[in-house]
Amino acid sequence: MAPETIGFQTTATDPQSNARVGLLRTAHGPVETPAFMPVGTQGTIKALDHRRAHELGVQILLCNAYHLYLRPGIEAIERSGGLHRFIGWEKPILTDSGGYQIFSLQQLRRLSDDGVEFRSHIDGSLHRFTPELVIAIQRSLGSDIMMTLDECPPYPAERAVLECAVRRTLLWAQRAWQAFQSSAPRYGSRQLLFGIGQGGTDPTLRRQCLSELCQWNFDGFAIGGLSVGEPTELLYDMVALSTELLPADRPRYLMGVGTPENILTSIEHGVDLFDCVLPTRNARNGQLFTTRGKINIHNARWRHSDEPIDPEVDHPVSRTVTLGYLRHLFTAGEVTALILATEHNLAFYHWLLATARQKIRDGSFRHWKRSFLERLQQAKVETSDEDPNAANLRSRCSTGR
Amino acid sequence: MAPETIGFQTTATDPQSNARVGLLRTAHGPVETPAFMPVGTQGTIKALDHRRAHELGVQILLCNAYHLYLRPGIEAIERSGGLHRFIGWEKPILTDSGGYQIFSLQQLRRLSDDGVEFRSHIDGSLHRFTPELVIAIQRSLGSDIMMTLDECPPYPAERAVLECAVRRTLLWAQRAWQAFQSSAPRYGSRQLLFGIGQGGTDPTLRRQCLSELCQWNFDGFAIGGLSVGEPTELLYDMVALSTELLPADRPRYLMGVGTPENILTSIEHGVDLFDCVLPTRNARNGQLFTTRGKINIHNARWRHSDEPIDPEVDHPVSRTVTLGYLRHLFTAGEVTALILATEHNLAFYHWLLATARQKIRDGSFRHWKRSFLERLQQAKVETSDEDPNAANLRSRCSTGR
Repeated sequence: MAPETIGFQTTATDPQSNARVGLLRTAHGPVETPAFMPVGTQGTIKALDHRRAHELGVQILLCNAYHLYLRPGIEAIERSGGLHRFIGWEKPILTDSGGYQIFSLQQLRRLSDDGVEFRSHIDGSLHRFTPELVIAIQRSLGSDIMMTLDECPPYPAERAVLECAVRRTLLWAQRAWQAFQSSAPRYGSRQLLFGIGQGGTDPTLRRQCLSELCQWNFDGFAIGGLSVGEPTELLYDMVALSTELLPADRPRYLMGVGTPENILTSIEHGVDLFDCVLPTRNARNGQLFTTRGKINIHNARWRHSDEPIDPEVDHPVSRTVTLGYLRHLFTAGEVTALILATEHNLAFYHWLLATARQKIRDGSFRHWKRSFLERLQQAKVETSDEDPNAANLRSRCSTGR
Repeated sequence: MAPETIGFQTTATDPQSNARVGLLRTAHGPVETPAFMPVGTQGTIKALDHRRAHELGVQILLCNAYHLYLRPGIEAIERSGGLHRFIGWEKPILTDSGGYQIFSLQQLRRLSDDGVEFRSHIDGSLHRFTPELVIAIQRSLGSDIMMTLDECPPYPAERAVLECAVRRTLLWAQRAWQAFQSSAPRYGSRQLLFGIGQGGTDPTLRRQCLSELCQWNFDGFAIGGLSVGEPTELLYDMVALSTELLPADRPRYLMGVGTPENILTSIEHGVDLFDCVLPTRNARNGQLFTTRGKINIHNARWRHSDEPIDPEVDHPVSRTVTLGYLRHLFTAGEVTALILATEHNLAFYHWLLATARQKIRDGSFRHWKRSFLERLQQAKVETSDEDPNAANLRSRCSTGR
């Protein structure tokens, strides 16, 4: 592949595992993988502006086609010349189709082979998504990576439900592929399309789905329908069998995952891309991810702490903001608490992924991963003596939700 | 005054008005005046972290002794080695005594010449502030500029109420002065003490209060008890007669003021320092201050606007974030909206004060002030056709309050 081409290339592989470092080139710049994509559902990371995201080294932003379709609406984004211009983010954007959100909706919906009918979570209005419309919406958004519409069943689900979801997901993948082939980018820059595999935690169905999915020449493949409540071991099993089946020359995206441990283990199995609300959502609830384990900032033990959040993470917030001050800001209900916690958690995730890439290049990934996870496990034991006041304090902190 | 001394010196005066540029040197660095102090009541500007405040050029932060005394408590701040270290802000801090907040409390309070008894707005617990305790608290905080405890009557107030407030404010000023003289800084860096004048909108009482206040050698003088609902013309009258009486070699601080017009007019009368919640609070409600007038971002007219907030204000947010995108973030209830609006409004206030200082130095302050206020007035007329949907949208935006 010529360096200027849009697409994916592996630049380093771990001799001891399936972990790999790669470069995913998009029309809005490169993404070094394994990469974590912060979630910016409505066109912003929650409690973080783009300049801060740039400073943090965020390489690619995940936005949601379903949310943006409902608000501000596709017309507003088209008028601006696409999503990048509308939100003022010049780096790569991946748009999720919104299938996952629609299947999570409480509102009545009708599902058929043709598509899915749902009511807006904002105003209850009726809408209908088909695989073709979802491609058209993402053409209007102009995202660098588009996702096909899929059916995402809950966990646990009966085999018949999983079978039906796999069949429909494949049918929709084919139609999405055709809609993609017969349409063109609206703003002149090439868009990639990723297909999504389903199958729940059933190995046979997973394999079948992915094998069939690979017959279309998608630019990348996603492992969907996981991190929906299944045991971690099943998650890892499904990831391992999926990456074995997926072509080596395409990026592999594990949707909605996850914890630092989930991410490192999945990297070991050969996953390249991740997204998850965990670092940002948990930040807003006062949970910090650090190199010495998770910290619940509401815990009274941090009240007089003048320790920085995490001196090992090379970011001004992590290195200089003290736990005592951050706890005060949460207790006082200050929005600044959400900003600082979000910034730190994303800095930690950035550090985690950057370190993983470096260790893969060094050939020391597995060793580092094991010792790092042991350290987190150890820290977990040490910090489990949560103060009984913490829950009470948490319920008083109105900014946390 | 030698350059290394703590204190105030005038560096330029406007030949056509009482406007002046000065340098207020504190133990934590200089403040070029006229200056606007953003309000950081609980140890942070709302919706803005310190790094952002530094970038904006914030010279001095205003914190509130009353709020910090209640939460996190003086002990927590003493343990950290003072407020600067507790919050991680290395530049100057002015602490308001909290008198204004106590007099605004709904909770029952008892007021006597000795002090004021009040119930905490957080948990209803009973507390008692005396002029001496307020100095002791601010010694524990280690703020660069401390304020005396004063009695701030509402507007309108009967003459007898104003007379009593003036008498008590002077009595407390004397006791505060003595407490200040007989105590020492706790963290080795010198603290300044400002006295506060009261008198409502009664010229005789204002003059009497300030004349007596000037007998103590305060490091600066504040004009208090204004911007509490009185007509703007009375505000300006009180400011003009106050600055005439106050010594030229001390900084003059107009408390709780105000709009861009209030600030420029008060600068013309010789005021050096300002604080106000307006730029930050209004930002959170979706009102933007710009060089072309105020913008209510909830107004539907901005829905498809790809104009930046204010290209004349030299800040990345003001110059690059579009009104259409910012409106989307407010409508979607994103915390990022609060961050960006706060950042822009403070950038605008920073630009306003920096431009005022430059124009005073140039000798063109009055001319610039007149033409700038005319322009704002003109813009006000042009943008008054608010969309009828705006109020409805505003009530839906849960992040605005």
